[in-house]
Amino acid sequence: MSVRIVDVREVTKPISSPIRNAYIDFSKMTTSLVAVVTDTLRDGKRVIGYGFNSNGRYGQGGLIRERFAPRLREADPNKLLNEAGDNLDPDKIWSTLMANEKPGGHGERSVAVGTIDMAVWDAVAKIAGKPLFQLLAERHKRNANPRVFVYAAGGYYYPGKDLSMLRGEMRGYLDRGYNVVKMKIGGAPIAEDRARIEAVLNEIGSKAQLAVDANGRFDLETAIAYARMLRDYPLFWYEEAGDPLDFALQAALAEFYPGPMATGENLFSHQDAR
Amino acid sequence: MSVRIVDVREVTKPISSPIRNAYIDFSKMTTSLVAVVTDTLRDGKRVIGYGFNSNGRYGQGGLIRERFAPRLREADPNKLLNEAGDNLDPDKIWSTLMANEKPGGHGERSVAVGTIDMAVWDAVAKIAGKPLFQLLAERHKRNANPRVFVYAAGGYYYPGKDLSMLRGEMRGYLDRGYNVVKMKIGGAPIAEDRARIEAVLNEIGSKAQLAVDANGRFDLETAIAYARMLRDYPLFWYEEAGDPLDFALQAALAEFYPGPMATGENLFSHQDAR
Repeated sequence: MSVRIVDVREVTKPISSPIRNAYIDFSKMTTSLVAVVTDTLRDGKRVIGYGFNSNGRYGQGGLIRERFAPRLREADPNKLLNEAGDNLDPDKIWSTLMANEKPGGHGERSVAVGTIDMAVWDAVAKIAGKPLFQLLAERHKRNANPRVFVYAAGGYYYPGKDLSMLRGEMRGYLDRGYNVVKMKIGGAPIAEDRARIEAVLNEIGSKAQLAVDANGRFDLETAIAYARMLRDYPLFWYEEAGDPLDFALQAALAEFYPGPMATGENLFSHQDAR
Repeated sequence: MSVRIVDVREVTKPISSPIRNAYIDFSKMTTSLVAVVTDTLRDGKRVIGYGFNSNGRYGQGGLIRERFAPRLREADPNKLLNEAGDNLDPDKIWSTLMANEKPGGHGERSVAVGTIDMAVWDAVAKIAGKPLFQLLAERHKRNANPRVFVYAAGGYYYPGKDLSMLRGEMRGYLDRGYNVVKMKIGGAPIAEDRARIEAVLNEIGSKAQLAVDANGRFDLETAIAYARMLRDYPLFWYEEAGDPLDFALQAALAEFYPGPMATGENLFSHQDAR
């Protein structure tokens, strides 16, 4: 059995909502939906892998349709296969997508390629006839753990949202079984954010833990001011205080915040993440 | 007099050629051509600003047409004007283009916005009725210097190109008056690159100086091996030895190469360039 990619399709769809975090509002946000169509049948149905990109980054339609999908369509199909020749090889496909790309300038391109990559892995798992988490564990000679950590990321700002609505939102997450919830900070004055945090902590009590996310908004002075406020509370983590590429800010902040800090969501290359 | 942007147009055009450097070949390369159309007349003709992006990065058609041009078209025109209201304000336009963009992930997006930015500055200079270099000098309270340093960037690899053809190419640059020429390295074994460099140095003699460009290809070990070879010659500079984001490589390389080194062409944010 050989496997061929017969088409790569992309549509850009609006995912608008009135929410905002400290940096952006989502009212014009779009996302890419990608389908990697294969010639392979499983249970009588054609295998199609699906991918989408995260909200917060816009749809990558042009890059996918004009640059990356043609590279897959034009590639020698035999060079996209694993050694056994019975499934696609995601690493070879990634290399094909990134052929003739200059080093540096990772960003939109990584999102476009990553969205196709997600669809490819989905197809590979479907062709292999097993869940992707299990397939990945086997490739890396680990035991697959079907349990994963999840948390509810919410607490956005939106027009007319007051403390009781914020508390109600968090109560809703608890009702659905979450035991870690996250809220946005940095989109309001610090005193108001403190009141928002206290309201949520009062609401969730001992039933859940609270993480906060500034979405890269703060300069060092503001990040430290927030650190001094936040360390009064038993938070799960303090996320993305400053610009994702401001490694010096992140390092300096550790002097002022003893608890866990999170960052890295907006780094797009292994060079940046070293 | 007020100024309005009435349209932003983009076309993606192939700029294919058989040349290659150490990293990419240019046979499928594209570029974006952008026109910022205003409602302003000068000498009886409508003012249109033009921009294009560098070769080496592909056309950014999708991003420009789907994401950035609509932001300009939908913006309040009065918020794109300078204080006097008699010309466009490139900084306000840039902020409008970058509204709701997440920090981090600079790359294609910077190229897309930069191409529009170039067209905007072209329109601004045309509306002001003076050359852009002079307009920029006046804004920064400097004396405009009409003389600029230029060099001929060539010496690419391509099929069938031998040393005599490389020498002939460099001779052509000298004939056109260049006194600094640049050639690609890193796309051939080091001994072959040494022979190419010696051939060019013999050709240009004392009439010009030679710079070399590895286009980010080398790991530290190779970058050092080349440094040890290159320091035998009086080069104008040694450009982009390693990955543009590998600042540690660049710093370590300084221990092995005493001459001038160049890099930064593939950094896309002030955070990366600090």
